[in-house]
Amino acid sequence: MSETVLYDYWRSSASYRVRIALNLIGESYRSVPVDLLARAHRAPEHLGRNPQGLVPVLDIDGERFTQSLAIIEYLAETRPESGLLPGVAVGRQRVRALSHAIAMDIHPVCNLGVVAHVTAVAENGEAARRAWMQKFIGEGLAAFERMLDHPATGAFCHGEAPTMADICLVPQVYNARRWEVDLSACPRIVAIEARCAAIDAFARAHPDRSK
Amino acid sequence: MSETVLYDYWRSSASYRVRIALNLIGESYRSVPVDLLARAHRAPEHLGRNPQGLVPVLDIDGERFTQSLAIIEYLAETRPESGLLPGVAVGRQRVRALSHAIAMDIHPVCNLGVVAHVTAVAENGEAARRAWMQKFIGEGLAAFERMLDHPATGAFCHGEAPTMADICLVPQVYNARRWEVDLSACPRIVAIEARCAAIDAFARAHPDRSK
Repeated sequence: MSETVLYDYWRSSASYRVRIALNLIGESYRSVPVDLLARAHRAPEHLGRNPQGLVPVLDIDGERFTQSLAIIEYLAETRPESGLLPGVAVGRQRVRALSHAIAMDIHPVCNLGVVAHVTAVAENGEAARRAWMQKFIGEGLAAFERMLDHPATGAFCHGEAPTMADICLVPQVYNARRWEVDLSACPRIVAIEARCAAIDAFARAHPDRSK
Repeated sequence: MSETVLYDYWRSSASYRVRIALNLIGESYRSVPVDLLARAHRAPEHLGRNPQGLVPVLDIDGERFTQSLAIIEYLAETRPESGLLPGVAVGRQRVRALSHAIAMDIHPVCNLGVVAHVTAVAENGEAARRAWMQKFIGEGLAAFERMLDHPATGAFCHGEAPTMADICLVPQVYNARRWEVDLSACPRIVAIEARCAAIDAFARAHPDRSK
């Protein structure tokens, strides 16, 4: 059987998501760090793994996969007992919509490369970066909080067990705290994040334990 | 049976994707325009449909859905004969990875609201906007072109019929042309886009026919 290997970076939200998912399904893996600050993701060795030059990359089941949510979808399909996605189509649609509200509408806009470019073109770079993070994470999570005002929300984003939506939410809240985004108007998010933090699969995936 | 209604905006890439998908599965629908330039997406009426204040929103099968790719996943699952996603898990993973390389890594960064903010903070707003579009669309499509250098690429992004990946690619190429991004280094993309443009389901979804 082929070894499961995750090429990741401790602070990458996309890597953090896949670490949580692998822990939730009980898949043990070897981590190979790709140091984004040292630009190791742009080295030929990593571009050979992923033409996009991004992390994470996952070797599993004898295949090589990129894109965190496409990886989690694969894990959900091939390990359906994990509950990463609900069992019915309407539920899966909601979990994907919640996941994409973070993974498409917040995270890419606050990506390292994008924000570096904002900092470069703005008059007051450092202040512009901080304002950018607070604006886009803050507005995005406020919208997510409103999406959680829904009968299918339970102890977690969808029902009573973690799904892909919680896997997306937790790294985004980590980033919100890092940039001192005010979460006082997001009580549902804060409560769900606290419940996730108490679960070993989430705790072991935390950036501080992946450095 | 409930009426299928698409709340959309002619130039929104996310709306354009869902229009193509509905056409490909042969689902007729009524279009309700939401004028983003008039900020109709921020009006209480639309926020009632979608707490994120985004288009598209789709009413179908008696349900209301948001998030373009989560909608397309739902259509793929409930109309599997459409081929919007391949029949095997590894193929689905690749189509999702290609789709997300556009829908997560290019499109959100070049979103109207994000780019308006760049224009506001930059010293030379209009030039900064143009440079921003050319940089992020150009680099993103160049990476996508490299991803297409893969044995599973056929006449379309994955195999010999359109999938969700082509549905994501075509609106992004429309935007690339709008911002005069140089596509000369992307022959695979250009060829696939031309094949899609010749298909009625894609042609009828074009922004110029949805104004």
